[in-house]
Amino acid sequence: MTEVATARRSRITPEREAELYGAVLDLLREVGYDALTMDAVAARTRSSKATLYRQWGGKAELVAKAVRHSKPGGIGLEEIDTGSLRGDLHALTLRSDDCEMEQNSALMRGLAMAVHGNPDLLQAFREHLIEPEIAEFHRLLQRAVDRGEVAADNPASGFMMHMMLGAFVARTLLDEQPPTQAFILSYIDAVVLPALGAPVD
Amino acid sequence: MTEVATARRSRITPEREAELYGAVLDLLREVGYDALTMDAVAARTRSSKATLYRQWGGKAELVAKAVRHSKPGGIGLEEIDTGSLRGDLHALTLRSDDCEMEQNSALMRGLAMAVHGNPDLLQAFREHLIEPEIAEFHRLLQRAVDRGEVAADNPASGFMMHMMLGAFVARTLLDEQPPTQAFILSYIDAVVLPALGAPVD
Repeated sequence: MTEVATARRSRITPEREAELYGAVLDLLREVGYDALTMDAVAARTRSSKATLYRQWGGKAELVAKAVRHSKPGGIGLEEIDTGSLRGDLHALTLRSDDCEMEQNSALMRGLAMAVHGNPDLLQAFREHLIEPEIAEFHRLLQRAVDRGEVAADNPASGFMMHMMLGAFVARTLLDEQPPTQAFILSYIDAVVLPALGAPVD
Repeated sequence: MTEVATARRSRITPEREAELYGAVLDLLREVGYDALTMDAVAARTRSSKATLYRQWGGKAELVAKAVRHSKPGGIGLEEIDTGSLRGDLHALTLRSDDCEMEQNSALMRGLAMAVHGNPDLLQAFREHLIEPEIAEFHRLLQRAVDRGEVAADNPASGFMMHMMLGAFVARTLLDEQPPTQAFILSYIDAVVLPALGAPVD
């Protein structure tokens, strides 16, 4: 595909996009954010740097979108609708197996460090990762409110993301091990649902 | 004080210890963990490197103990006993004002990053900071169980530290602001106490 054709169509295929995001994540795991170059991404994916910049604007945006695309918690949350908050949160957890969760945890730890020296990365993360996830969690929670599982004014509703993210981070720091499905499921049942006053069984 | 006198007495005074820990934290804020040297600590505190090594073993242990000494959540938790779990957790939060919490948050963020490249720092943190805090939170929780505020088999008990630490970390990442007293107090009332089934008022 020539540059002109790409520019005219202005969008690449979903398959090509997935392949490209996968290559970005591989490079991130290999060299980290600071050492990652658009040249390396172009070489690895056999695309031109011009195409990458036109499609993604820059390295920070490309990385944020690649992470969002790969995150089971990010993409596809809207497809989950089991009929109960517990079911939805458990289904969400079970989307990634323990091996994926460990890889994801290592990747996010590296990126959380890179964010400090790169305000553009933090901005891209907010826009493409954090805000969409907050919005999706709110939709999931709103359905629980609509079903009568959670009171509309439950004060824990505003801490949904804090509770969930906290479990992942604290598990890594306190227990020196990556979060497992079993850990997250028991945390949801012991902390998140009781705090929200939602049924645990 | 000569080296020999220090060795004989084997312990420095609490005032001198506090002064030394303060200087270590100042240096940490100025240059970060990796650039901190025992030479700089010795110069800043007008002590000999030999004394520092004899008393603390090494840089990792010295830093971990300095952080523990400065942390309102670390030292003095055992002095808090208000008669209710909510009172204890609120008193704990109110020990440090928002300015101290912001400084502490920045310091801990820097150290959390340093931990990745320094296994000896992680080991010192576990031994001198994390494990004592876990033990102290367990005592505080045990008193709540003894008073009948929390059921002995409440499943959230094992997540006490995860809930608390999660609030601090997620606040910084999600909301891009340091945790304030108001934030932590409302998180305790909305999440921690309901999850534990403890009275909120």
